[in-house]
Amino acid sequence: MASESGKLWGGRFVGTVDPIMEKFNSSITYDQHLWEVDVQGSKAYSRGLEKAGLLTKTEMDQILQGLDKVAEEWAQGTFKLNPNDEDIHTANERRLKELIGETAGKLHTGRSRNDQVVTDLRLWMRQNCSTLSALLRELIRTMVDRAEAERDILFPGYTHLQRAQPIRWSHWILSHAVALTRDSERLLEVQKRINVLPLGSGAIAGNPLGVDRELLRAELNFGAITLNSMDATSERDFVAEFLFWASLCMTHLSRMAEDLILYGTKEFNLVQLSDAYSTGSSLMPQKKNPDSLELIRSKAGRVFGREDKEAVFEVSNTMSAVLQVATGVISTLQIHRENMARALSPDMLATDLAYYLVRKGMPFRQAHEASGKAVFMAETKGVALNQLSLQELQTISPLFSGDVSHVWDYGHSVEQYAALGGTARSSVDWQIGQVRALLGAQQA
Amino acid sequence: MASESGKLWGGRFVGTVDPIMEKFNSSITYDQHLWEVDVQGSKAYSRGLEKAGLLTKTEMDQILQGLDKVAEEWAQGTFKLNPNDEDIHTANERRLKELIGETAGKLHTGRSRNDQVVTDLRLWMRQNCSTLSALLRELIRTMVDRAEAERDILFPGYTHLQRAQPIRWSHWILSHAVALTRDSERLLEVQKRINVLPLGSGAIAGNPLGVDRELLRAELNFGAITLNSMDATSERDFVAEFLFWASLCMTHLSRMAEDLILYGTKEFNLVQLSDAYSTGSSLMPQKKNPDSLELIRSKAGRVFGREDKEAVFEVSNTMSAVLQVATGVISTLQIHRENMARALSPDMLATDLAYYLVRKGMPFRQAHEASGKAVFMAETKGVALNQLSLQELQTISPLFSGDVSHVWDYGHSVEQYAALGGTARSSVDWQIGQVRALLGAQQA
Amino acid sequence: MASESGKLWGGRFVGTVDPIMEKFNSSITYDQHLWEVDVQGSKAYSRGLEKAGLLTKTEMDQILQGLDKVAEEWAQGTFKLNPNDEDIHTANERRLKELIGETAGKLHTGRSRNDQVVTDLRLWMRQNCSTLSALLRELIRTMVDRAEAERDILFPGYTHLQRAQPIRWSHWILSHAVALTRDSERLLEVQKRINVLPLGSGAIAGNPLGVDRELLRAELNFGAITLNSMDATSERDFVAEFLFWASLCMTHLSRMAEDLILYGTKEFNLVQLSDAYSTGSSLMPQKKNPDSLELIRSKAGRVFGREDKEAVFEVSNTMSAVLQVATGVISTLQIHRENMARALSPDMLATDLAYYLVRKGMPFRQAHEASGKAVFMAETKGVALNQLSLQELQTISPLFSGDVSHVWDYGHSVEQYAALGGTARSSVDWQIGQVRALLGAQQA
Amino acid sequence: MASESGKLWGGRFVGTVDPIMEKFNSSITYDQHLWEVDVQGSKAYSRGLEKAGLLTKTEMDQILQGLDKVAEEWAQGTFKLNPNDEDIHTANERRLKELIGETAGKLHTGRSRNDQVVTDLRLWMRQNCSTLSALLRELIRTMVDRAEAERDILFPGYTHLQRAQPIRWSHWILSHAVALTRDSERLLEVQKRINVLPLGSGAIAGNPLGVDRELLRAELNFGAITLNSMDATSERDFVAEFLFWASLCMTHLSRMAEDLILYGTKEFNLVQLSDAYSTGSSLMPQKKNPDSLELIRSKAGRVFGREDKEAVFEVSNTMSAVLQVATGVISTLQIHRENMARALSPDMLATDLAYYLVRKGMPFRQAHEASGKAVFMAETKGVALNQLSLQELQTISPLFSGDVSHVWDYGHSVEQYAALGGTARSSVDWQIGQVRALLGAQQA
Repeated sequence: MASESGKLWGGRFVGTVDPIMEKFNSSITYDQHLWEVDVQGSKAYSRGLEKAGLLTKTEMDQILQGLDKVAEEWAQGTFKLNPNDEDIHTANERRLKELIGETAGKLHTGRSRNDQVVTDLRLWMRQNCSTLSALLRELIRTMVDRAEAERDILFPGYTHLQRAQPIRWSHWILSHAVALTRDSERLLEVQKRINVLPLGSGAIAGNPLGVDRELLRAELNFGAITLNSMDATSERDFVAEFLFWASLCMTHLSRMAEDLILYGTKEFNLVQLSDAYSTGSSLMPQKKNPDSLELIRSKAGRVFGREDKEAVFEVSNTMSAVLQVATGVISTLQIHRENMARALSPDMLATDLAYYLVRKGMPFRQAHEASGKAVFMAETKGVALNQLSLQELQTISPLFSGDVSHVWDYGHSVEQYAALGGTARSSVDWQIGQVRALLGAQQA
Repeated sequence: MASESGKLWGGRFVGTVDPIMEKFNSSITYDQHLWEVDVQGSKAYSRGLEKAGLLTKTEMDQILQGLDKVAEEWAQGTFKLNPNDEDIHTANERRLKELIGETAGKLHTGRSRNDQVVTDLRLWMRQNCSTLSALLRELIRTMVDRAEAERDILFPGYTHLQRAQPIRWSHWILSHAVALTRDSERLLEVQKRINVLPLGSGAIAGNPLGVDRELLRAELNFGAITLNSMDATSERDFVAEFLFWASLCMTHLSRMAEDLILYGTKEFNLVQLSDAYSTGSSLMPQKKNPDSLELIRSKAGRVFGREDKEAVFEVSNTMSAVLQVATGVISTLQIHRENMARALSPDMLATDLAYYLVRKGMPFRQAHEASGKAVFMAETKGVALNQLSLQELQTISPLFSGDVSHVWDYGHSVEQYAALGGTARSSVDWQIGQVRALLGAQQA
Repeated sequence: MASESGKLWGGRFVGTVDPIMEKFNSSITYDQHLWEVDVQGSKAYSRGLEKAGLLTKTEMDQILQGLDKVAEEWAQGTFKLNPNDEDIHTANERRLKELIGETAGKLHTGRSRNDQVVTDLRLWMRQNCSTLSALLRELIRTMVDRAEAERDILFPGYTHLQRAQPIRWSHWILSHAVALTRDSERLLEVQKRINVLPLGSGAIAGNPLGVDRELLRAELNFGAITLNSMDATSERDFVAEFLFWASLCMTHLSRMAEDLILYGTKEFNLVQLSDAYSTGSSLMPQKKNPDSLELIRSKAGRVFGREDKEAVFEVSNTMSAVLQVATGVISTLQIHRENMARALSPDMLATDLAYYLVRKGMPFRQAHEASGKAVFMAETKGVALNQLSLQELQTISPLFSGDVSHVWDYGHSVEQYAALGGTARSSVDWQIGQVRALLGAQQA
Repeated sequence: MASESGKLWGGRFVGTVDPIMEKFNSSITYDQHLWEVDVQGSKAYSRGLEKAGLLTKTEMDQILQGLDKVAEEWAQGTFKLNPNDEDIHTANERRLKELIGETAGKLHTGRSRNDQVVTDLRLWMRQNCSTLSALLRELIRTMVDRAEAERDILFPGYTHLQRAQPIRWSHWILSHAVALTRDSERLLEVQKRINVLPLGSGAIAGNPLGVDRELLRAELNFGAITLNSMDATSERDFVAEFLFWASLCMTHLSRMAEDLILYGTKEFNLVQLSDAYSTGSSLMPQKKNPDSLELIRSKAGRVFGREDKEAVFEVSNTMSAVLQVATGVISTLQIHRENMARALSPDMLATDLAYYLVRKGMPFRQAHEASGKAVFMAETKGVALNQLSLQELQTISPLFSGDVSHVWDYGHSVEQYAALGGTARSSVDWQIGQVRALLGAQQA
């Protein structure tokens, strides 16, 4: 259109388009990921044009073969980008024209760039979410298998980083596996909304050339068709949903990593990370840092709050790496059974002591207070809670009798927690079964 | 436990607990919202204790009646908070004890505060999401009704704030309604995950006293039971999901508000906000500001990035107000039909001009260029695009002939966009039908 | 103006202004905080009007006295809000009119609501930042005093939660105090930009009535005058800066809290929180949770990402409470000196062992490797690093000789780190002096 | 150290270190930016080692020459990365060793990786902030020059997108320039805190080998030395500050872009973007999109909420491009003077009409109401506000007399706003002078 008037107040650049602006506007550095789905989408669209009578059969075949050639060049790494290829869509069409001539100019008939971009993005994300789904289920499966094998190991359950109650080690594993199972469920819901065809929406008003969107849907194997052309080309809810999914999943992995970092310190000494997932220090020769776990934590920060298309590629890669590293960590983690056992201490049974009194008829609030007095008495005397004599306990409540000794058995303690979801062996087995059933259903 | 040693390095406060710390720790100012569900949860739990033999039938009845009295006091505004009531749960149990004595101390048997808090929150949010769902569907219904009634009004569709193509006014309404329909669908998914019973999880290890969680589930009408007690008491995925849902829904409402603010300016002058949703300026007598729309936009900022329980209450209230105001705005908005018609200009048909050539056999890329030349020719001559003579057009392409005059009819233009999702009347009707069907399905 | 036409598509509400919209628009629930500065600002403005000849001396005196009466009512808690008082500014002017009659209507001459709001907010924040500044310096001072008193206590410095090198306990305290000193510096910069007068900017174009802004500046004791009236009434950079300041400061306090939570676990057992800053569990009688520290951490989340005026009030209150609680925590914290000493282990001197070889002439990269071999040899033999015999060490490098025994003294180790900023006593003393000097300079 | 035991629960990978983990841990793809400062830092450190007696003069010279060679290879693009070079620091030291042999191993003596990373980052950011400072001042200068040249052009000032009051076009330009001036000031403060030397802090405890940090500071031209070694190696406040600075600056540029997008619409038609900063549509031949402005807006979203080191590089590049594009846009923007004049309408003088009455002695609140009545009367009669007859006005207030005609002159209107910061010519000149003075001071 109108040529560029001279700049009025000086400035850096002379010419028709500011080169910084052009570079700024270019997305080719990251949207190359889309080469395969871009070809796929264009092939389907050319079939749509043929059915609508806008391409002859011969023209369509020419375009299809040309696009296959473009794809082949990408696959073999021989595709050459031009400096003017501002995005993958321009690049592919430019190359198609070089290969088959002017007929290439018919491919974009009735299609807008937005139309094409959002179709490509949905195709790419659909494929990618399938991969991430499989990796996530593999991680959960590894965790559940491990939980099953190590059901009989007890260790301290912590709240506020304070030792709270004895639980099964498997109960801890399952608490994280259950959280990830929700992520797996959510990812399927996101995929369902990704899997909707926008192609055929044009710029804003729709497609005026009789393209059959149902044909496009079937060609590209989408589950449904977008309802409104303006909404279809502009909405990116599915991107926001995917990024939110990644944030929540990373939060879960990050919490698990945080627990393991702590359990692996010299002070806790409950687990030991495989060398394959640790690194040393450039200065301190004795150090072995839990780098895999720290990276999982820090990557969480990188996932939060991203908002754009570029983020989709980066976050997808991050999730893929993180899920595989987490699977590796869990499958190679060594646990220190003796330390786990040693970390259990009688004061962690103070709740059970209160329940002992409850079972003898004392209201819980009073029993809680009585047990608190026993804890204080033991602390004052400098002995463990289970070393208080029956006489001493009876000064707190006459309800204590000889059978209080049963309270001090950790195995007996956890077996009490038999309500669904608790840490008793029967309940842990039930959890394992439930998670496996969910995995099976989600895979189907 | 051990009494407080003197402070070692001076400091502000003397006594056993720092009062700032206590105030800091208190949540009663905002969790009062939970009074009703807290009573509801406690009533169910006392039935569970009775079935487990931890309460006699008489004790249970005492507790149930006491809790009903507590609820009555809240409902009538006569409940008196003590300074020591740090949260709603403490307050209710404290009051119960005043009303029925020591038996109240049995209510918390085997239940932890976390157990109780998360159960209450789920109950509250379940109720609240139902209300928001209904308000959201009411808004969508208003929009669809309006879209149906005003199907025949055309106006400019904008992209990048530039006039792009003629579309139906209803097409714009539906583009926003369709986005909100996705929000409605998502809210149902969030509700499904909210509707899971955590009660019976204790602090961390589960419940050791034989409480039947299936009974609790049935009493409180939850759809399922949490799988793992550690996860159940600590996870707040459903809060994050709800807040994300609110963010996305607010984004949609905010975009609609932004369009309407613009369409209502003196310069666009396409719509006029009802006085009921406008306000004046304290300084400039002539001003009428679109405050309702600006508040919708600014509230969006308040919804994003909130993370805590307190946010749930505030965001719920905001959503409720916003959805009602948006419904009011849409149902009272005046549109300026003549201005809408006047805002359509022949250059918005440049795409159709290109399609004219495409239909005559020119590849789209060439047709796009030819139409661009026509636009430039008209600009240069200072006339409207449809005022170029056939001769002039033929200097650009010999494919132009007399029938090009049909291109300049806006009504004819929109009717071409008949592919599903487009702006043709048949497609708009299809959209209306689809959205109504979705609303019906979501309500069921 | 023009009355509202009937709603076209039904809807909830009948009348002139939607009551939900009105409530939505009201800010009186939180901007009451501004009552005092609103009166202050109005008093200054009425002096400006008098000087410009827009108020007579008598009218000005009437207004000044009326405003004093308004302030008195707020101070005594007798000010009564009307349902129509949508914000503090409306409320105060409405009350002024009740007290002195029509003259009150002259006060707003040439002033816009935006003008007034932003002036009030700057006055309030200026006062509030001074208070926070003082609280922050009090915290730093407490930390520095403690660092000075406990200079001779050594304990493990951790990186990646792994024991890294022996350091002074004071070195840890000072690492956090130095971070807070930067916050203190930044707060002064924020205050400088808050302390600029916007009053006299009108709605957008400025003040046309000869009001002397220099007089207003002097009356309200601002440091400068805003340069452009459009920018002055709309910019909220200073709010964003304050909220960012709060985020960064909370990050620092949160990290300190995180360290202390960890050091206070049964497993680390290096410090013990005062009972004044701990709370119990409703279920587990033996628990003592570090609630003050956890609240500091969780409040950090509440501070991040807030953006609005309402946030200023809430974040200010949070910061005030957090700074006081942190000061209380630090001043009452007990440390376990023996456990600190016990937590030092010879492998933490592996870096010093490498330096021993460096001092004998070995390049550091080789010395690092040699020391690593010694660590591995000790691990393999199941002995502590300092229990390897000289012969054993010499199999790794012939540079080891009898003087290697000096390496195993922790006190000697830390004294080596005498470069500025290190953990040697001289350097710690230097740090204490530097921080005190900065505090002195910032207070001035 | 100890070799990895076989995996216990299966898994993907066999070997010593998981390759995904290694790739995950590598930062070489983005920290290559640091090659130059890494060499610079190492050269300074080797001088420090020589002074401390840990390198001989000969060894130091060997290292210095080797490092110069490394730098030369980077500068000439001949540096070859190894697959094992996990970051730029490892890569450079690996290459140095290849060039000069074992002496290279002495370079890292007493220095930790953290020490080195944070020193490099500060050096890089110091340089980069200087560049951004200069670009920002260039933009402000362009704006001020333009404001000076176009002082006499009036156009509507908007609030809430409603026409509010007539203002000078320069007043609008300056409102944005003033905001950017604050950014320029803030960037200098950030730079001051970047410009502090951390080198010599070791891993955590400091440097034990007598390295003179004052020498390092002088060599690297830092303004000060970090106070505490633990804080020095871990704190990234300066990164957070820089990213916050970028967010705020982008907010300002984004708001300016938003205004210009709007002013450039067909409907407003007040300005026209140069072709150099516009692009077309792939579908609609008539479209000319303000892509430069939209990119500025969208890049703002990319800057917000980034948190990591990688973000520094990306955000720096974005800021550099955005500042240059913004300068280009402003220097080439065409304005439509006649449209600007036409967009002024008498109702925008309603505030002046109220002031007219104020000057005749009416309290402002009454005058505001009277002027509002005049606006309503004109609307009802369907005439412009200035077409009401004197008689008609006098039915509203007897204070109206013949001199009311002076109110309707836009030039006269803006000249009234002569208080500092207003839109009168004298005030605009004052603003230009003030901003230039600030620029001068900031440059010095």
